[in-house]
Amino acid sequence: MRIRNKPWAEDELRKNPRVIFGPETKKNISGHWQEFFGNSNPIHLEIGTGKGHFIIEIAEQHPEINFIGFEKVEEVLIYPARYAVEYDKKNMAFIYGDAQFITNYFAPGEVERIYLNFSDPWPKKRHHKRRLTHPRFLNLYKEVLKVGGEIHFKTDNRDFFEFSLEKLSGNGFLLKNITFDLHNSEYAEKNIMTRYEKKWVEMGKAIYRLEAIWTGK
Amino acid sequence: MRIRNKPWAEDELRKNPRVIFGPETKKNISGHWQEFFGNSNPIHLEIGTGKGHFIIEIAEQHPEINFIGFEKVEEVLIYPARYAVEYDKKNMAFIYGDAQFITNYFAPGEVERIYLNFSDPWPKKRHHKRRLTHPRFLNLYKEVLKVGGEIHFKTDNRDFFEFSLEKLSGNGFLLKNITFDLHNSEYAEKNIMTRYEKKWVEMGKAIYRLEAIWTGK
Repeated sequence: MRIRNKPWAEDELRKNPRVIFGPETKKNISGHWQEFFGNSNPIHLEIGTGKGHFIIEIAEQHPEINFIGFEKVEEVLIYPARYAVEYDKKNMAFIYGDAQFITNYFAPGEVERIYLNFSDPWPKKRHHKRRLTHPRFLNLYKEVLKVGGEIHFKTDNRDFFEFSLEKLSGNGFLLKNITFDLHNSEYAEKNIMTRYEKKWVEMGKAIYRLEAIWTGK
Repeated sequence: MRIRNKPWAEDELRKNPRVIFGPETKKNISGHWQEFFGNSNPIHLEIGTGKGHFIIEIAEQHPEINFIGFEKVEEVLIYPARYAVEYDKKNMAFIYGDAQFITNYFAPGEVERIYLNFSDPWPKKRHHKRRLTHPRFLNLYKEVLKVGGEIHFKTDNRDFFEFSLEKLSGNGFLLKNITFDLHNSEYAEKNIMTRYEKKWVEMGKAIYRLEAIWTGK
């Protein structure tokens, strides 16, 4: 699955002190994030952080939260990882890895919020199990989320959104603040746009968004 | 708004002991439903009960719940009202009245669940405030629902469904068990069909459904 045609990116990520480098070189980080950050602030995780436009912006706005970007493509992850070091952003860290291994990196209840921003919609039915809101992923998130913790999800794909409403609401999450048109809703003002989202909105397309609370059962 | 071309229906409803007859002849029923039913079982309310296919079926299945059908059209309400008397259904009652006066009939917290089955979708934008999931109605439901009480809503109208997801989830309700295709979902087995719904499903159309929990804030 992983593309390894950029050895320079891998080398750079390995040397970056803000990056936990994949399950292959697994550090004993699970349960030790407070030590890593040097404080007990809540941990918010973005799965599929890409070039980091969202995490850079939100980490700037919320110094009282520790943000971790999860990303499996090394040549995009180098950008936010570089940024965190250059600007000495102490509330940012990254994991170079695949979401299916999320439970390797966090102890039960260690994560307070997960962001899923424009995850791959996997439109074909036979690929739906790869969607990051498929129950097989939800079950992993439940292992690391604290009870009362949340998933904030947005997408431009209607079918993926409806799938996510169904799967979350049927698997122990309670939903709030749903919108079928984020940029014409009361939630627009506080919204932090991803780079992808900006292009999409400029084209006049709707963005779908929800928040889900993990009930613990 | 109300159609009064069937005086015989009105006469019959007035005489029926299972019917609370409208705000005009308001009885002091608010806060006294336990006395009316002679027990302290939970109260579930269907707003827009029509000819009563749903309430008759669910009341049969759940003798441990008191069911009240709210209906503003007298010549349809006479059918379930007649049924309740003829078959001596002690866990069924009816209110001949308009949902906008719901707070006249119930004390705060007296209702545990509200069913909205195929309410009028009011498709034109200027009529959206008449939709039974518009915030002006949600605010009334909150006055009579107990905290933790629920609204169970189903419709065949996608726009009305999306509107309802947004309005409920943005106004103090948490959503669970959402489906965009009830009759091909895990919720089909326990579902009680309305008469309207049967026709719709026979035509192969999708039914949308949600459950909403009142958080008390």
